[in-house]
Amino acid sequence: MCSVLTRIRPIHRAVALSLRLGANTEGSSYAATQSRRLSPGKNSVVDLQRNARFYCSRMAKTEGLLFRQLFEVESSTYTYLLADTNTREAIIIDPVLETIDRDLSLIEELGLKLILAVNTHCHADHITSSGLMKKRITGLKSAISKFSGASADILLSEGDKIRFGKHYLTVRETPGHTDGCTTFVSADESMAFTGDALLIRGCGRTDFQQGCAKCLYDSVHDKIFTLPDDCLVYPAHDYLGQTVSTVGEERKYNPRLIKSKDEFVEIMNSLNLPKPDKIDISVPANLVCGLHGL
Amino acid sequence: MCSVLTRIRPIHRAVALSLRLGANTEGSSYAATQSRRLSPGKNSVVDLQRNARFYCSRMAKTEGLLFRQLFEVESSTYTYLLADTNTREAIIIDPVLETIDRDLSLIEELGLKLILAVNTHCHADHITSSGLMKKRITGLKSAISKFSGASADILLSEGDKIRFGKHYLTVRETPGHTDGCTTFVSADESMAFTGDALLIRGCGRTDFQQGCAKCLYDSVHDKIFTLPDDCLVYPAHDYLGQTVSTVGEERKYNPRLIKSKDEFVEIMNSLNLPKPDKIDISVPANLVCGLHGL
Repeated sequence: MCSVLTRIRPIHRAVALSLRLGANTEGSSYAATQSRRLSPGKNSVVDLQRNARFYCSRMAKTEGLLFRQLFEVESSTYTYLLADTNTREAIIIDPVLETIDRDLSLIEELGLKLILAVNTHCHADHITSSGLMKKRITGLKSAISKFSGASADILLSEGDKIRFGKHYLTVRETPGHTDGCTTFVSADESMAFTGDALLIRGCGRTDFQQGCAKCLYDSVHDKIFTLPDDCLVYPAHDYLGQTVSTVGEERKYNPRLIKSKDEFVEIMNSLNLPKPDKIDISVPANLVCGLHGL
Repeated sequence: MCSVLTRIRPIHRAVALSLRLGANTEGSSYAATQSRRLSPGKNSVVDLQRNARFYCSRMAKTEGLLFRQLFEVESSTYTYLLADTNTREAIIIDPVLETIDRDLSLIEELGLKLILAVNTHCHADHITSSGLMKKRITGLKSAISKFSGASADILLSEGDKIRFGKHYLTVRETPGHTDGCTTFVSADESMAFTGDALLIRGCGRTDFQQGCAKCLYDSVHDKIFTLPDDCLVYPAHDYLGQTVSTVGEERKYNPRLIKSKDEFVEIMNSLNLPKPDKIDISVPANLVCGLHGL
């Protein structure tokens, strides 16, 4: 097994499958977490004083962690760079082909050793740079969910830990936008990299690539909304210039996910979105770390 | 004097004027700070271990501070929202007309009381929303440098403190891009909002609006590069998808500002940039808080 990845507990395949298949999870161990959901009105505001860290865009409890958020404007994609400031080991989440030079230049300037390029899922709107990065950085590994259908050095499952120095992110399977969507949660649960499962006041579409609105609803409520209110939400995209949210905020104000599951499914089935411009290029390319035809 | 603003020390007009006029500052009290400059090679990397907080995009020492970075895509402008999580008093830096609804919606959702809309300078590339915000939020004040030529409720000078709850930002005059450019520094010097004076691996142009390359060089070296290495740099713009830098990084890797002053002036005088699309609309509008013709 790759040194950057450890598995500390059995893979909850039954639960994961039931989520992906959209089965009723009322009887599962996840059902209890549903009671934590809020059903707020628009007029109520969050108690900032009680949660002093609630809305800060920072990682209050994680010392020695480098963090950079980077943006690719054409696909409105966020790429995240995280590193241990002691060992200099670094990982990059959702790197984009168009910005590979910017990202590698920053990594060089900061004196980091990039050990893993990981994707939250097989993207339909842009091509990952993880494959090309592997060609340019000796020893770099790629990773993606084992349910993505994509090839990579490391295939991720529920509960896997992505390690870099003394830090790690835990993999939570959050299917629905695609069958292989994952959310990465920091050790202290102060940050969640939610991919397209949960966006700021939105969520990923569910009308292609094994999309399943019911599964997405369960994924977000069971795997993300059960995190602490002050956990920072870093999505894979934002189209309105927002850089971060919190679990508490999304539980309160996400216009789709505060609805009932039936209402959510109806909303998602009525979006009638155009097909992404790059889907016919991006998906085949991302199934092979962005190296299709290169 | 407005309650959000206090002046705790005499205004160093002589020094400020000498900076704006590009005079030799070797004999000033700022000269000693010049010795802190680095002249690094591209190959050297920063000691991450010695500065464990160096590259983290966070505010390690500032408890109870809400912070949000927001982006306006057309002009690539960053807007910053800061608030005291206890009193809920908030300020907004460089708000943009096109995103006023997004910003006010967020402020409402977070339950904040916006008391000040402040601009780092009189922008040439976009129209500020501070005037329209004043029409929509009772009691809101506007602020900008007294050297900007713009009208506002509060005209800022060197050393002024912009207060919100228990927090404050200190005004540093950093002319050069314009005569009225300011940088706002948090009380613990962990964050600097540098406007167009210092951008990530760049700086604002100096070829219009009282621009002065020599003044800008002195401003950055005397007022920003003298901040701690781990002070986070939040600029008014970024065109490459970068969200934050640090003073240490810019002192080491800013391709323009690591040069000698003469080389810097030559670089700035050779840029031959096109005139901003909106300058003939934006500057007159921003001289009256964005309310020109409204």
